[in-house]
Amino acid sequence: MNDSVFWAEQTWPEAAAKVAGGAPIFLPLGATEQHGHHMALNVDVVLPTSICETVARAVGGLVLPTIPYGNRSQPKTGGGSAFGGTINLTAHTFSLVVRDVLCELYRQKVRRIVVVNGHYENIWPAVEGIELALDAIGRDRCDGLTILRLDHWDLVQPSTIDRIFPDGYPGIELEHASVIETSMMLALRPELVDLGRSLHDGPAMFKPYDRYPLPLADVPPSGVLSMTAGSQAEKGNWLLTDVVSRMTQIVRDEFGIGG
Amino acid sequence: MNDSVFWAEQTWPEAAAKVAGGAPIFLPLGATEQHGHHMALNVDVVLPTSICETVARAVGGLVLPTIPYGNRSQPKTGGGSAFGGTINLTAHTFSLVVRDVLCELYRQKVRRIVVVNGHYENIWPAVEGIELALDAIGRDRCDGLTILRLDHWDLVQPSTIDRIFPDGYPGIELEHASVIETSMMLALRPELVDLGRSLHDGPAMFKPYDRYPLPLADVPPSGVLSMTAGSQAEKGNWLLTDVVSRMTQIVRDEFGIGG
Amino acid sequence: MNDSVFWAEQTWPEAAAKVAGGAPIFLPLGATEQHGHHMALNVDVVLPTSICETVARAVGGLVLPTIPYGNRSQPKTGGGSAFGGTINLTAHTFSLVVRDVLCELYRQKVRRIVVVNGHYENIWPAVEGIELALDAIGRDRCDGLTILRLDHWDLVQPSTIDRIFPDGYPGIELEHASVIETSMMLALRPELVDLGRSLHDGPAMFKPYDRYPLPLADVPPSGVLSMTAGSQAEKGNWLLTDVVSRMTQIVRDEFGIGG
Amino acid sequence: MNDSVFWAEQTWPEAAAKVAGGAPIFLPLGATEQHGHHMALNVDVVLPTSICETVARAVGGLVLPTIPYGNRSQPKTGGGSAFGGTINLTAHTFSLVVRDVLCELYRQKVRRIVVVNGHYENIWPAVEGIELALDAIGRDRCDGLTILRLDHWDLVQPSTIDRIFPDGYPGIELEHASVIETSMMLALRPELVDLGRSLHDGPAMFKPYDRYPLPLADVPPSGVLSMTAGSQAEKGNWLLTDVVSRMTQIVRDEFGIGG
Amino acid sequence: MNDSVFWAEQTWPEAAAKVAGGAPIFLPLGATEQHGHHMALNVDVVLPTSICETVARAVGGLVLPTIPYGNRSQPKTGGGSAFGGTINLTAHTFSLVVRDVLCELYRQKVRRIVVVNGHYENIWPAVEGIELALDAIGRDRCDGLTILRLDHWDLVQPSTIDRIFPDGYPGIELEHASVIETSMMLALRPELVDLGRSLHDGPAMFKPYDRYPLPLADVPPSGVLSMTAGSQAEKGNWLLTDVVSRMTQIVRDEFGIGG
Amino acid sequence: MNDSVFWAEQTWPEAAAKVAGGAPIFLPLGATEQHGHHMALNVDVVLPTSICETVARAVGGLVLPTIPYGNRSQPKTGGGSAFGGTINLTAHTFSLVVRDVLCELYRQKVRRIVVVNGHYENIWPAVEGIELALDAIGRDRCDGLTILRLDHWDLVQPSTIDRIFPDGYPGIELEHASVIETSMMLALRPELVDLGRSLHDGPAMFKPYDRYPLPLADVPPSGVLSMTAGSQAEKGNWLLTDVVSRMTQIVRDEFGIGG
Repeated sequence: MNDSVFWAEQTWPEAAAKVAGGAPIFLPLGATEQHGHHMALNVDVVLPTSICETVARAVGGLVLPTIPYGNRSQPKTGGGSAFGGTINLTAHTFSLVVRDVLCELYRQKVRRIVVVNGHYENIWPAVEGIELALDAIGRDRCDGLTILRLDHWDLVQPSTIDRIFPDGYPGIELEHASVIETSMMLALRPELVDLGRSLHDGPAMFKPYDRYPLPLADVPPSGVLSMTAGSQAEKGNWLLTDVVSRMTQIVRDEFGIGG
Repeated sequence: MNDSVFWAEQTWPEAAAKVAGGAPIFLPLGATEQHGHHMALNVDVVLPTSICETVARAVGGLVLPTIPYGNRSQPKTGGGSAFGGTINLTAHTFSLVVRDVLCELYRQKVRRIVVVNGHYENIWPAVEGIELALDAIGRDRCDGLTILRLDHWDLVQPSTIDRIFPDGYPGIELEHASVIETSMMLALRPELVDLGRSLHDGPAMFKPYDRYPLPLADVPPSGVLSMTAGSQAEKGNWLLTDVVSRMTQIVRDEFGIGG
Repeated sequence: MNDSVFWAEQTWPEAAAKVAGGAPIFLPLGATEQHGHHMALNVDVVLPTSICETVARAVGGLVLPTIPYGNRSQPKTGGGSAFGGTINLTAHTFSLVVRDVLCELYRQKVRRIVVVNGHYENIWPAVEGIELALDAIGRDRCDGLTILRLDHWDLVQPSTIDRIFPDGYPGIELEHASVIETSMMLALRPELVDLGRSLHDGPAMFKPYDRYPLPLADVPPSGVLSMTAGSQAEKGNWLLTDVVSRMTQIVRDEFGIGG
Repeated sequence: MNDSVFWAEQTWPEAAAKVAGGAPIFLPLGATEQHGHHMALNVDVVLPTSICETVARAVGGLVLPTIPYGNRSQPKTGGGSAFGGTINLTAHTFSLVVRDVLCELYRQKVRRIVVVNGHYENIWPAVEGIELALDAIGRDRCDGLTILRLDHWDLVQPSTIDRIFPDGYPGIELEHASVIETSMMLALRPELVDLGRSLHDGPAMFKPYDRYPLPLADVPPSGVLSMTAGSQAEKGNWLLTDVVSRMTQIVRDEFGIGG
Repeated sequence: MNDSVFWAEQTWPEAAAKVAGGAPIFLPLGATEQHGHHMALNVDVVLPTSICETVARAVGGLVLPTIPYGNRSQPKTGGGSAFGGTINLTAHTFSLVVRDVLCELYRQKVRRIVVVNGHYENIWPAVEGIELALDAIGRDRCDGLTILRLDHWDLVQPSTIDRIFPDGYPGIELEHASVIETSMMLALRPELVDLGRSLHDGPAMFKPYDRYPLPLADVPPSGVLSMTAGSQAEKGNWLLTDVVSRMTQIVRDEFGIGG
Repeated sequence: MNDSVFWAEQTWPEAAAKVAGGAPIFLPLGATEQHGHHMALNVDVVLPTSICETVARAVGGLVLPTIPYGNRSQPKTGGGSAFGGTINLTAHTFSLVVRDVLCELYRQKVRRIVVVNGHYENIWPAVEGIELALDAIGRDRCDGLTILRLDHWDLVQPSTIDRIFPDGYPGIELEHASVIETSMMLALRPELVDLGRSLHDGPAMFKPYDRYPLPLADVPPSGVLSMTAGSQAEKGNWLLTDVVSRMTQIVRDEFGIGG
């Protein structure tokens, strides 16, 4: 058990000792959501978990169990509810899970927390979960607590994006199940990707509004919002290197951990 | 009372008659939030309300009372809670208000609804409020109901952005209290703007992560996230013309209302 | 912006400065509810907002945005849900909005708050919202906080009631859309009243119990619970003078503000 | 067990048979709240339970267990939280209890329900509980359901009030722990009343507003809001006779039960 | 009123004085649930209330009003929802009632609380209600508070079980409406038991899993999970003597009350 | 991807096709909770996940992502909150997660669900989550839905228990981190067990009540409630064989799946 960076693989005295030693604790936020015909439903779990694992190893941290169900998929960012396989939580439920876990960490005297998100729709209810935890703890009683929150794709360097998309970047919202996610999965879990089955229907051209209950018809039937062509493990490694190195640096800087 | 487009200024028989006649109903979502030293706290109320008013007049619709308190301001998109004057609702409360109003409209046999948002942080809890309303109504009992949801800034044409920002657009998230909002306010309510007091601290350079409970120090102290220089009523009118004409077209197309 | 008493029309530094100077902050509670054939749906918004405006001007206070949707209308006090135009919040939602706004004021170091209600059905969920805010703040940490809560009609002097109703007062609950509200609206917003359309079906004779889901048949079809005959702007001014002067005195006395 | 009218004293087949036979089901709403130096804390439980018992016997109904904890006592209507002995539920909790019980009755095919309230502060959260139950059941699926709701004091005849208060009636809100409640308790449970200990501090003269968190000082220290002098079992019987006969008539009329 | 041990039968000064004197306060948790053809629906109210009454008398305590509606009956432990007469609360509602009552006791400076449960399905939501109260109070502000929680059947001595079940004990979960409960009711409230009507269908043979929404068919149609044969008041007295004496001892020991 | 039984490792068309083919869907409920000095914190995740995997393979089912955080650990069944490493959800949050996932499965037309629990404290909030899902779906609209719920330890045959505990079985509640769980972990994930570090303090002798906020001192400091001596992978295989074969049979029988 000794050299695992996963909280769940520690015994309780090991976890307690690492917390007492100031280990930063990483909470990955995932989802179970369609990612096209060519990738498994767990992309949003695999990516933040894997990134946290690498960073935690570098900074002496621990990675909590990934929350495997995410906030409701929306048509323009994940395809929405029309696709089989996607399992949504309501925003309130998701926020309460985040709140409860953070309150428990605080109770255990964890004061260095990094929330790492892998699912676009989680952003706002994760923020709300953090705010609810701070409300519950008491804003004036937070006693040294620092919670960092990030979306892994925001740590990619612009130069890497330029390298991957020499013809222009469609934007992160359209990147659902597309080149970035597919390349990272090829680098990390190639057995969960089958580019041979890849369907993509050209970049989605979304109208500038949403419609409910019947969503607009502009979600590509494949579930891929942009394109998969050009996905490569090598590009995935470029992306992962960016994210991991930037995140490691942020954690070191914020928590004063030498490297 | 007859020619008002505001729901609140109808008698009940007038409102009922217009609903029976298929009038689209607009729900503006606002906020009470700092907008720099040069603008009032009600920018996110004034803009969507005014836009809805114009569109409703064009399409024979009615505008509901604007929800005047929005979801929690966040540092990178509205300055966050450090500024006096900002009054936040929790995400759950905001979603419940949206849910309740939509359920009431449905009960009154309104079937054409347009939710028009003026505050960035409202996006996700507004989506959740719509989803909760559909859950409450019953997804299989929605009986002709159509809810459109949009953020007014998404209806601006790229060419207009290029015209206003010849040196490049900083992006909508940074546009808080900046040229776009200031110009639109100058066009609509110049008495609520005093460019002479305008302070801006250069475009915010945000780090790619959030920090809680003490936010990162990169929020400009003025509360203006980008810049106010160059704000003009004329530009405001360009923007408003774009938004209103696009929104009018969307409403006509979606609801089959001739022009 | 300088001489507005509306919170929403301040810049954030102006609002912050007035709070720091001890300005009492007024929160009007409204509703969107039928008020007969002769008045607009916004009576319960207009009246408390206008009263607060006058009092705030007298005592150096600020008026927050009025909550425009109220707790569920009930048959005997507002006609109930059978009338078009009425948009209800559930009691829990309404209480949470009040709670959230009060907690935000407390966080911003506001310690002098006046909650001014204009809709009968709001009374109890407003009380609950206040109690929930105190629970959230901590009863033993309220640190100088004083919240006053009042219903504007309770500040009318008995002698004025006698003057307006020489043949006897039907009671405030029956006054929905009747002489008191109509007269006050005539004084404040005559363009929202059309006495020529006024229908009233004689004072409601309510049975001493409620029935659900089909309410008792004793709600007058017009929505006017008592009568409109005799409504006059002059009477409205008598009423408003009473309310404003009494409320001003209460605020001065409670907060030690000289006059 | 056979001749008890209490639901709780039936075996399940007996309860089921009576429900199948169309028995009206009574739900008394009580409270545990101070009632002066001379009466026990259970006045708001004893009165509605006893009234329901008598009426249920007359109409072939059953009386559910009384909800023994009520919505938060307020200073002007029950003395508020400053008195020992009072145990408050929050409004939301109270509403949920009412909702849950009503939904269960509906599930068991009960279609004739009478909610009988004995605590002033319960009125609005009881209404909300009923509305929440109807929301949960589905407004368009209520299938013959009728819920009556009443406050027992509203069934007293004006002539009886005149007889008891020849010098004028202080109003029901001030009647907390005063002549009406005391007389009814003397008639029903004299062992829970000790007029010899009775303290009352003259009728409360309430200011026309509320104050939080420290309430206004105008609550009489005894907890009696009006007066106890003149309380008599005989008057209690007058009152109970009024309430029981009126309520019996209402139930017969509404449910078509012959007498 | 003086010698009653029921909180509800005290005047407020009496309750306050006893609390100030350190009286332990007992909160019985009941249910309204089928208990076979031979017993009333209030068994789970009668037993814990009666036990608390006796113990409170012995230790100078007070017994709060019993919560008369319990958490959802489940097929294997109470027969489930198929039986007429059972009125369930949802777990969340039940927990909120427990939370609210405990918070109110804390506010009144009660520091010695004993929660005594009489309904199997209440165990977990009662625990949750206690935890929620501690969350609301603040874990680090509990200031001498001690809450004991017990299920009365756990205080029976093994030797008594052996005496009553010489052929082997079926286990407490199966004891619903069976020999233990029936014997205790015969000892306490024989008029609510009619052994002549007793039906039992042999001990339930439950499969080791649950099924929803249609439960498994293995619930005995009588609602008696084990058997009623052999129920006797005398055995009830053995059981009650065990429970009362053990509980009295626990309360004395925990709270340092001499005997 | 083809031969994985994990939902998360399917593409969405694969998941949708298996659902359409009637595949039973398994939802494992786990926890992150101390399990002594010799086992990792993920025992309650590993065991139900692994069992589900084997059964799903046998019956053509799919295993959803395991909920990795469980309901609050209690002293007598999991050691409670005093141990480092344990991360609790509140009961309400846990129930909402279960509810949301089940509602999503229903929406996707899954009609055969098996909820498999690995953490004692999850039992009741899992039941509540199922009931809440049925409430949300509508009890009369469940349309062929069957949800089975089981705790894996209940499927062990008595003869196996006798074989493992020739000197008597301490009972499942005491089995936390003891011989049963340790043996099963040795069989499944021996690298997460280190018997050399095993501490156990003799079987816990619990008093027959709980105490809050300071729990009774009778929780063994090691966190092992019974004993670890005698744990062996072979015994683990006996246990797993029992559970898997019984569960396979139950699923086949309930869903009419041939073997």
